[in-house]
Amino acid sequence: MTDGWKRQASADRKRIDQALRTELRGCKGVPRRLRQAMAHSLFGGGKRLRPLLVLGVHDALAAGEADAGGSRDVALRAGAAVEMIHTYSLIHDDLPAMDDDVLRRGRPTCHVAYDEGTAVLAGDGLQALAFGVLADLGPRASEMVAHAARAAGPAGMVGGQQRDLEAEGQEVTARMVERIHRDKTAAMLALSLALGALVRDASPATIDGLLGAGHWLGLAFQGADDVLDVTATSEALGKTAGKDDACGKATWVRVEGLERARARARRYGERGLARLEQILPENEATRRLHDLCGYMWRREH
Amino acid sequence: MTDGWKRQASADRKRIDQALRTELRGCKGVPRRLRQAMAHSLFGGGKRLRPLLVLGVHDALAAGEADAGGSRDVALRAGAAVEMIHTYSLIHDDLPAMDDDVLRRGRPTCHVAYDEGTAVLAGDGLQALAFGVLADLGPRASEMVAHAARAAGPAGMVGGQQRDLEAEGQEVTARMVERIHRDKTAAMLALSLALGALVRDASPATIDGLLGAGHWLGLAFQGADDVLDVTATSEALGKTAGKDDACGKATWVRVEGLERARARARRYGERGLARLEQILPENEATRRLHDLCGYMWRREH
Repeated sequence: MTDGWKRQASADRKRIDQALRTELRGCKGVPRRLRQAMAHSLFGGGKRLRPLLVLGVHDALAAGEADAGGSRDVALRAGAAVEMIHTYSLIHDDLPAMDDDVLRRGRPTCHVAYDEGTAVLAGDGLQALAFGVLADLGPRASEMVAHAARAAGPAGMVGGQQRDLEAEGQEVTARMVERIHRDKTAAMLALSLALGALVRDASPATIDGLLGAGHWLGLAFQGADDVLDVTATSEALGKTAGKDDACGKATWVRVEGLERARARARRYGERGLARLEQILPENEATRRLHDLCGYMWRREH
Repeated sequence: MTDGWKRQASADRKRIDQALRTELRGCKGVPRRLRQAMAHSLFGGGKRLRPLLVLGVHDALAAGEADAGGSRDVALRAGAAVEMIHTYSLIHDDLPAMDDDVLRRGRPTCHVAYDEGTAVLAGDGLQALAFGVLADLGPRASEMVAHAARAAGPAGMVGGQQRDLEAEGQEVTARMVERIHRDKTAAMLALSLALGALVRDASPATIDGLLGAGHWLGLAFQGADDVLDVTATSEALGKTAGKDDACGKATWVRVEGLERARARARRYGERGLARLEQILPENEATRRLHDLCGYMWRREH
């Protein structure tokens, strides 16, 4: 693995921030405090993994095409939309009625920095804004909205959070953990890959294949999260370490121990990577995406 | 005014309930408790005003056309989507961190019947589901999503709720009340009219005109709400009467007294009706929509 993907990711993170700023600024008439609360969480030092996946698939499919520059701007906007949905979910997950977290990425969570009512509304507003952005992304916009609604909705991310809350302190099996991680985390990562392909007007087969790859990569990512909660410091994580265990969260580490959970994340990640390679053309952009995805479960924070 | 619109509305309410049930059932893999919480609020005895407006405009524009039956099913789905957004906003508005209401339409609010975490997620899930439904509504689906995202988002409904919360107990002017009512209420009623027209593939001029009519009708509707909070009983309202005053809410009644507020609602309502008549063809469906809209500020609950 070379470090080429890191340089690219670092440059792209700046572009993603810029795209997010442009969308937020373009939304006129937002009450000041609400806008500040949205910005607080949106520009809170996230890894921007989901937009990077959108861009990665886009670049892999656009390599050598004449219109790659124009569609990259569309991919950036799609990535901004996914990041808005992700951010809204973090704001709501952190609420006292849910995970009750005061720290996120090393900064006060939205309801701590503002207040609970504003935090609920900032999340609600970001979700609406995200769909508004996707609706503006050209001939396949309504497919993008449909995929995003499924991934983020009650049978996806929102349902996963519900299952996660209900599983707290309960006896769980590896299968139940997998269901939670699939709905809560993997669905949105799979969506990110699919959006990159939709921007490039890819075939249904390519989109389905990417959703499948994203499923395994997403499980690997969340598996790594479970491991890091036990092995990393709060400082490295930017959030309270050891919290999963303290809250009795459903994690693979709790079900089968640290070493087996680590092996599972690696196994799933490799499966996802293999699928990705079957679908995407061989080129420099695909190699960078491959390395970015590998980092998803090899990361240290 | 005849009562023809009431019979039509009553029959349509059943169709709207059916459309909502179909959408909810079509969403597979939703955790049981989350689905129940969504259904609790979705089938809580609402007036279904917003879907009725979608259907009303649809019928006015479809009268005599051969494809009116097929497009009416699309209008029903669009109406279901608007009702989902409206319902999610009520669930979140009722939360302890916002209006802290325990009663809605004579039944316990979602967070009382379930719990706060589930209520937040039920609202989040309904919003996502609504956009998923709109994305599936044919050639102008992405326009529908864009309009809905604007009306429901941080510069619309969500922003209006933020302004409403911030204005509690503050000195307000009639102009500030108008801004709150416009964003919080009128935007979604205007959206409903516009969706009915989008289903019928209407021109941008028609859609703009309907958004304008909806603006005034929506202000009239909310103005009537302000009046009813003071004049009606909790039993008639199905929610706690007198609560606006007790909480120091920004209402026209508070700013200018009952009689002037009542006159204002009527004035705005008549302005909205006049616009509606300029835009829609003269037919039986338009007359029914006219009567339904008149009810919006003449109602007693």
